[in-house]
Amino acid sequence: MNIPQSSFPRIVIIGGGFGGISLAKKLSQKEYQIVLLDKHNYHTFQPLLYQVSTGGLEPDSIAYPIRKVLQGYTNTYFRLAKVQKIDTEKNIVETNIGELKFDYLVVATGSTTNYFGNQTIAKNSMSMKSIPQSLNLRSLILENFEQALLTDDLHEREALMNFVIVGGGPTGVELAGALAEIKKGILPKDYPDLDTRRAQINLVQGSNRILPAMSEIASKKAEQFLEGLGVNVWKDLRVTDYDGKIATTNNDTVFETATLVWAAGVQAVNIKGLDAKDYLCPGNRLRVNEYNQIDGFEHIFAIGDVAQMESEQYPHGHPMMAQPALQQGDKLGENLIRLSEKKPMLPFKYHDKGSMATVGRNKAVADLPKFKSQGVFAWFIWMFVHLYFLIGFRNRVVVFINWVYNYIKFDREARLIIRPFKKEFRLNSEN
Amino acid sequence: MNIPQSSFPRIVIIGGGFGGISLAKKLSQKEYQIVLLDKHNYHTFQPLLYQVSTGGLEPDSIAYPIRKVLQGYTNTYFRLAKVQKIDTEKNIVETNIGELKFDYLVVATGSTTNYFGNQTIAKNSMSMKSIPQSLNLRSLILENFEQALLTDDLHEREALMNFVIVGGGPTGVELAGALAEIKKGILPKDYPDLDTRRAQINLVQGSNRILPAMSEIASKKAEQFLEGLGVNVWKDLRVTDYDGKIATTNNDTVFETATLVWAAGVQAVNIKGLDAKDYLCPGNRLRVNEYNQIDGFEHIFAIGDVAQMESEQYPHGHPMMAQPALQQGDKLGENLIRLSEKKPMLPFKYHDKGSMATVGRNKAVADLPKFKSQGVFAWFIWMFVHLYFLIGFRNRVVVFINWVYNYIKFDREARLIIRPFKKEFRLNSEN
Repeated sequence: MNIPQSSFPRIVIIGGGFGGISLAKKLSQKEYQIVLLDKHNYHTFQPLLYQVSTGGLEPDSIAYPIRKVLQGYTNTYFRLAKVQKIDTEKNIVETNIGELKFDYLVVATGSTTNYFGNQTIAKNSMSMKSIPQSLNLRSLILENFEQALLTDDLHEREALMNFVIVGGGPTGVELAGALAEIKKGILPKDYPDLDTRRAQINLVQGSNRILPAMSEIASKKAEQFLEGLGVNVWKDLRVTDYDGKIATTNNDTVFETATLVWAAGVQAVNIKGLDAKDYLCPGNRLRVNEYNQIDGFEHIFAIGDVAQMESEQYPHGHPMMAQPALQQGDKLGENLIRLSEKKPMLPFKYHDKGSMATVGRNKAVADLPKFKSQGVFAWFIWMFVHLYFLIGFRNRVVVFINWVYNYIKFDREARLIIRPFKKEFRLNSEN
Repeated sequence: MNIPQSSFPRIVIIGGGFGGISLAKKLSQKEYQIVLLDKHNYHTFQPLLYQVSTGGLEPDSIAYPIRKVLQGYTNTYFRLAKVQKIDTEKNIVETNIGELKFDYLVVATGSTTNYFGNQTIAKNSMSMKSIPQSLNLRSLILENFEQALLTDDLHEREALMNFVIVGGGPTGVELAGALAEIKKGILPKDYPDLDTRRAQINLVQGSNRILPAMSEIASKKAEQFLEGLGVNVWKDLRVTDYDGKIATTNNDTVFETATLVWAAGVQAVNIKGLDAKDYLCPGNRLRVNEYNQIDGFEHIFAIGDVAQMESEQYPHGHPMMAQPALQQGDKLGENLIRLSEKKPMLPFKYHDKGSMATVGRNKAVADLPKFKSQGVFAWFIWMFVHLYFLIGFRNRVVVFINWVYNYIKFDREARLIIRPFKKEFRLNSEN
């Protein structure tokens, strides 16, 4: 790979998500050469992907060019590359555009959908971890309604208007709420010649409450909000298979649906060469110490979703979301600077800023360090926090304008089938 | 096709472009049943496609859901359909979703790229007539620069940074200007490790001036603007072939380029069954009389790019752009209402509102009915007019915000490779 030689040690960062970007920012203009690799040329603000899927936001407003983030950082290089293998003996990263030697390596590859080995579900369901995937889901939802108009078979029509979302975490809850609002506010106007009251939104959760990582009150309120919007919330139910038409479950419940969204699990993105048993944890996470060093290495780090830093409070590592990634990126940056100054590294400590999920207009739940809130106030906090963490002034303005417009007009205008959904996109949808 | 029976005559409109939409609006709530067919579920504001290709705008802000346009229009139906054939004897439209009988038919299918029969150019060049095509071009431009970083072969690197735009009409001029601004304002910051001064933007025009449909002064000034921005303007030069690497011309000039954009010609979109010799004109346009009736038919009309209404002033029909389509849609609507009221139809008269093209910031040319202008004032008019004709309040606000941002920051933030460009997309890019 064409990276100039430098007199400073080279840090290779794999992944331009929350962790990788926060690290690269921290290390700018320091005594290192930084090479950031990503398979996309943009950073994705994943928490808002469900709004792209449901036509509330344009994809471009939640993506940000990585080169723009790095503008003006001397000694920092970006390469659009897919990493294929790490050679931890020779300290080489192998990619589709060639090899690269590193002095330090930071794995910040994030997470992907976990189908728990079920290939049929993987093949037939939709997921929502990247912008292309979210656009595929947007196209499919809209195509389903166009298709529903064409059939005289009531059975088929209902399957086309039946949505099954598997997984009652924030993604599932937010998507279910957005679909319910579309059903109520947009479908009857867009499809006056279709009985859209028959559209069904089902949220299926394997345990006995949705949002299991949040407080009991948040779970309860979110469920009430969803039911108020007409979502069928199924608890203690697990989808066991889905052939593209019929979803079966662990009991007699069966869903006939053309759209099953799998939001029931994530796993870390694994890289060949970093898969030794002593540090590879369940879900492909890499066990790291309090300095984010992967067990057994001094110079190879992992941050964010892919890192499992076990502690008394977090025996299975931190939650796989934006905050730990941002904070670990920042702290690791600080530690690498300390290293270059021959100072000892400092242990990472996670500051839990709380978690939240939005269900619909004026309806969100928030568990914050000092208080819990459900309803309008939580909804405002949710919006403020998301705008705050979105990268780029233009993106913030465009998202804000869209939200204000959607709120006032009860509308979502990005209901566009820019590229019709095709199965081959799904199988290759990480692109 | 599942369209309810109605006591009113049925008008089928093929195409939701400027003409089809303006007609459907005019006919809302009148004594007709309207069925609008389009292969996309959105209207495309084609004049701004080049800004999508160059990262200045998100695609969603120049597209508008057709169902949203038609919201609240009783007796009006939209179907996402590809028309395959017209049966003018049985008055039937055949589509991929079934057949539909019509009482009146309006062909508003618009235009597509004309390669004048050159299959090699068609296969290897990019065009910009639809949103997917524009996004493909955006991806390819960005991928070229990423690729240029990777090669040590100076020859190959220059070919990757060499852009050839064939056709000096408004599309070619606007794209060339935008690329020149990117070269100047963004590339050096995004690619500090690449000698982007070597990037070349070539605009190739077959005749002796660019913007040949505009005034001499507009042509001259636009050329000056382009040259000021560093664009190489080639006149009296025709690209004769392009194999994906080398573009040959009608003289010794040869371009080595990875990106050839073909903006040198358009032709009307033809439909099987409407291709009789007596009304089919060169470039697939359909000859219509002053009421937009296709020669030989009382109940079949054509409007916009696909209609050739010959007159003394316009012996080859009106220019293929938005204004004639908008005006013909409106007038035909009025005439169809008159028909239902048993009044005679009125002949169409084109009100030429002028034409304009923008080259870059503060630089546009405008030939208006009362005066001509070149420079800052023309640029403001250009922006105002485009915002005015854009459909949808949200779209206007988002486009405006983007323009203000891009202007102040000398930036274009939508430089995202959302879907990498693949050749199979090009071959099937109308999707």
